[in-house]
Amino acid sequence: MIVEKLAIVGTGLIGGSFALALKQAGAVRTVFGVGRNPASLDAALERGLIDRVVDWAETGQADCILLALPVGETAAVLKKLVPHLKAGAIVTDAGSTKVNVVATARAVLGERFADFVPGHPIAGSEQSGPGAARADLYQGRKVVLTPQVDTRADALATVTALWQAAGAQVETLDADLHDRVFAAVSHLPHLAAFALVDELAQRADGDTFFRFAASGFRDFTRIAGSSPEMWRDIALANRAAVLTELDAYIAALQALRSTVSDENAEALLAIFSRARAARIHWADTQA
Amino acid sequence: MIVEKLAIVGTGLIGGSFALALKQAGAVRTVFGVGRNPASLDAALERGLIDRVVDWAETGQADCILLALPVGETAAVLKKLVPHLKAGAIVTDAGSTKVNVVATARAVLGERFADFVPGHPIAGSEQSGPGAARADLYQGRKVVLTPQVDTRADALATVTALWQAAGAQVETLDADLHDRVFAAVSHLPHLAAFALVDELAQRADGDTFFRFAASGFRDFTRIAGSSPEMWRDIALANRAAVLTELDAYIAALQALRSTVSDENAEALLAIFSRARAARIHWADTQA
Repeated sequence: MIVEKLAIVGTGLIGGSFALALKQAGAVRTVFGVGRNPASLDAALERGLIDRVVDWAETGQADCILLALPVGETAAVLKKLVPHLKAGAIVTDAGSTKVNVVATARAVLGERFADFVPGHPIAGSEQSGPGAARADLYQGRKVVLTPQVDTRADALATVTALWQAAGAQVETLDADLHDRVFAAVSHLPHLAAFALVDELAQRADGDTFFRFAASGFRDFTRIAGSSPEMWRDIALANRAAVLTELDAYIAALQALRSTVSDENAEALLAIFSRARAARIHWADTQA
Repeated sequence: MIVEKLAIVGTGLIGGSFALALKQAGAVRTVFGVGRNPASLDAALERGLIDRVVDWAETGQADCILLALPVGETAAVLKKLVPHLKAGAIVTDAGSTKVNVVATARAVLGERFADFVPGHPIAGSEQSGPGAARADLYQGRKVVLTPQVDTRADALATVTALWQAAGAQVETLDADLHDRVFAAVSHLPHLAAFALVDELAQRADGDTFFRFAASGFRDFTRIAGSSPEMWRDIALANRAAVLTELDAYIAALQALRSTVSDENAEALLAIFSRARAARIHWADTQA
């Protein structure tokens, strides 16, 4: 399958890597770039992620349009796009939350909602911007699509084929389950890492603490280097599930606190042993 | 400086790597191994980490003895060792907590406490055992020593020289400050990672969650693969400081929860931006 014209709205790590992978796979002919940040578009052009910078009218003439932006910008971008959408154009997204993106797309796209394929590539990095884009970012990674009952089957098939051409393994999930799962395994860890680093940074003697932080701290807090705008949008877009996960995590930490306070050596060993076994089992499934 | 006889009590990752590094640096002549685990001693012999397996009587004849064990075993090991300690023998440790190790050593060693140099190499891995030992484990890493007013100056100098020969950068800290700092930058992240993984693993539908966990989760939870026994001992040995850090972290998460619940986009962006800036600044200091 070859897509003649692909448009990328937001030519950063996610959008740029998608374009690069599809170019290398020969799955797209021409890639348009559009976005609010001229420096990012220039860098994307220079790196060959996109072939041309276009306006919204020309974006609407693409065969497939990927939104690769913080989810908070979905409504504004779709509003700019919808008057220009040519017949048959497919719109998809790479947002980290899906229920709110689906609701927004349904509201803004109206009868064109059938052409919208909600998606979420499970890849990324604390790096961002077109400079971080890589052709192999999606190689072997999962991409979750959350099609709705009225999503056009051929739009879903095209988006699936594009992600597969980029090297990804495509799965479909109910949007609500998607949001609950990623609140737990992605959104919560990001918030927990941000909270830990900020709490230390706020201390008057914080420098003494950071000075002795080592590899455990480095890995635990790597994701605290992620884009603040993106994570603000995710926390708000998936608020209910994120609050549920924060509550579950705070409760788990309070239970652990009681166990330490009670000097319950046996219970501590049980918690740590279960966690270690689960972590090792998980790592084995990833290998 | 050459130490004629070095004894390693606990020939796992930490003790084995110390022995290997010193052998390669030519800083020790003979390395004795002692411990409760025959399989670990055999593996250490086979890998050449140690030259001989010895009993407690012979251990006491070494010039320098490193305890590289979970801190909960410090008292029992020192009790076995003290009747056999030759004049001038230096004892040091690699425990992750220092206040309780110092108190234990003072109580058990009595007049020989002056020969005890409390230490903590800031290196390690979620791997453990002699198979994980590496000659370069301490290369460029910090080792914190927490000498007391009555610690023999030449014992401190010898232990400092040995860690430097192993490639480490030696610093001294007050034992109490050491324990507070490491409660924040090491013990808390470990407990937080164990708690997160265990909380997910306890769910009836936990498999669905683990199935979509990716690189952010992988790094955040890497340390949940660490030794349960070691971390049980650390949590109990540094209980007061660990509880203080758990309280501060739970309070930070509760504040973040309120910010999400209130949909305070500006405050979320501020927290995430401060954390990102602090994390990037810290990473720059590590480079």
